[in-house]
Amino acid sequence: MDLMRTDSAPELPGSPREHLTAETTRAALRVQHVMLDAARAYLTEQGCTEVLLPIIGPVTDPGARGAKQVDVDYYGHRYKMMTSAILYKQAALTTFDRIFCIAPNVRLEPLETANTSRHLAEFHQIDVELSGASRTEAMAVAEGAVRAMVRRVIETARAELDLLGRDPDAFADLLAERFESRTHAQAISDLAEIGHRQNPDAEIDWQGEALLSAKSSRPFFVTDYPKGSRGFYDRENPEQPGYLRNFDLLAPEGYGELASGGEREHDYGAIIARMRETGENPSKYRWYLDMVREGIPASAGFGLGLQRVTRYIAGVDHAWQTVAFPKVPGVVAP
Amino acid sequence: MDLMRTDSAPELPGSPREHLTAETTRAALRVQHVMLDAARAYLTEQGCTEVLLPIIGPVTDPGARGAKQVDVDYYGHRYKMMTSAILYKQAALTTFDRIFCIAPNVRLEPLETANTSRHLAEFHQIDVELSGASRTEAMAVAEGAVRAMVRRVIETARAELDLLGRDPDAFADLLAERFESRTHAQAISDLAEIGHRQNPDAEIDWQGEALLSAKSSRPFFVTDYPKGSRGFYDRENPEQPGYLRNFDLLAPEGYGELASGGEREHDYGAIIARMRETGENPSKYRWYLDMVREGIPASAGFGLGLQRVTRYIAGVDHAWQTVAFPKVPGVVAP
Repeated sequence: MDLMRTDSAPELPGSPREHLTAETTRAALRVQHVMLDAARAYLTEQGCTEVLLPIIGPVTDPGARGAKQVDVDYYGHRYKMMTSAILYKQAALTTFDRIFCIAPNVRLEPLETANTSRHLAEFHQIDVELSGASRTEAMAVAEGAVRAMVRRVIETARAELDLLGRDPDAFADLLAERFESRTHAQAISDLAEIGHRQNPDAEIDWQGEALLSAKSSRPFFVTDYPKGSRGFYDRENPEQPGYLRNFDLLAPEGYGELASGGEREHDYGAIIARMRETGENPSKYRWYLDMVREGIPASAGFGLGLQRVTRYIAGVDHAWQTVAFPKVPGVVAP
Repeated sequence: MDLMRTDSAPELPGSPREHLTAETTRAALRVQHVMLDAARAYLTEQGCTEVLLPIIGPVTDPGARGAKQVDVDYYGHRYKMMTSAILYKQAALTTFDRIFCIAPNVRLEPLETANTSRHLAEFHQIDVELSGASRTEAMAVAEGAVRAMVRRVIETARAELDLLGRDPDAFADLLAERFESRTHAQAISDLAEIGHRQNPDAEIDWQGEALLSAKSSRPFFVTDYPKGSRGFYDRENPEQPGYLRNFDLLAPEGYGELASGGEREHDYGAIIARMRETGENPSKYRWYLDMVREGIPASAGFGLGLQRVTRYIAGVDHAWQTVAFPKVPGVVAP
């Protein structure tokens, strides 16, 4: 069984009508409907409450690699569209111990990402945050959510998988075995072994992620990213300064990154220091820092890219095939 | 049993911490979680597929009474944040016969709406669109969705209702009897009888809605609004020119409007004519008109204001009490 994908769909979506009426679009969106239902049921079983979070606010997650934020004028104030819900997720833990949200985000990704097959300027994350949880617990919930979605799709969307040419056997290992985990340092060394040079102080590059992804038969975690590669909110490991208690979840078969998460920094002084290190101006984050100073729970959580997971489960070539009205970076579209 | 609410919460939310840690916020959001789950289950049973729709695009619904649209710069193009998903809902019916979406919207409502207790600059609609459906069928689905939410809340969120001081008996009539319906013309005449003068060619004003709402023990429909009061997408009644095949759903007990919907115009020529009548420039709507010209299904649908329905079911004073991070018009907030 060859699990490597071969590209067959065109690089970019056709007209809205061509895209909306394509059998593959219909099948991928049916798969996504089932996935959403399964993910929400699983997260509710895990004790999470669904909390709808803002789509604009005075500040947003600065940690979106290379993407530009979108400004909006909110009654004369300069607000941002959310690049991720992270600040709100932490704050909302003062209401509920465990929360989730299917959160829409907008990131003006660089034009060169139009051809990565996995970047969209508008996308959704299955956002989860868990009070008092360790990284290990957050990873278990992320794994459980992916498994719940795959299981439900196989049970109830066989016809759609058939139409998409997606063999349910591709998920046999995923359903049978726990996801493996390796550190970022180990991933760098694995990549070096197959001849891919990767900066050890940075996020793994897209090609590196694809190479690691292509070598696995089920999703796997990469943990302990170096500090410089992420936003201020991922907690630094007190026992290994310079490295974070965080993780990415990568798909097999070359589909690349599915999720990012980790334990969160919740100490006021540490967050201010991390903001300064990452070039953020703390005065912009006033409402968030007010919350943090008065105390927010320790937590761990993640954001699972809905379109990326749909792409992997549906086995389609491009992330835009999993959206009714896709926005490929730089391409003008509805 | 006195079903009229008495205001007790402050007019505006306190600090994010005060709001997030209030027992009433927690209870109202738990009620909303249950409502979302029940609404999605009901709509799925009705044959709807969940389709996630854009939050920005080249144009949006121009029919938001008095509210300003928010501009964004999308790779050098002037886009709008969605005020409603209507254009996308119609287009998505080329993919699925029946769809729903829990869609976030942003409308810069006029500052004077800050004190209506039911306007939010950022809110969600339970958006539904049904191919080939009549207004009557869309009304039945809207009614069914409200009833499904109420039933589930009563079954599974009694403790939250208790905490909120919301008597489940308030919903006895709602659960026992079909919602009544009257035309806009009849509503105008009912209002005249109780001494409220209302322009017969316009949307019923907020005070008028509250008066009608206060006289009912369960939600009720108002139908056949005059053409000038709505966007170009509500279908004109061919048998009664100047009036629309549309409806609003109003809550009892003074909670006011919960939903708007109707049969949709889907004829290219008629839409162009209606755009011109409502002062819209058809050239702005290119992608949508391209879809319409090549053919979209006849349909009916509605948008049910999630926070307004939550306010009614939870029995809280203000719409902002049903949002974790509320945006009251004109008030700077996270």
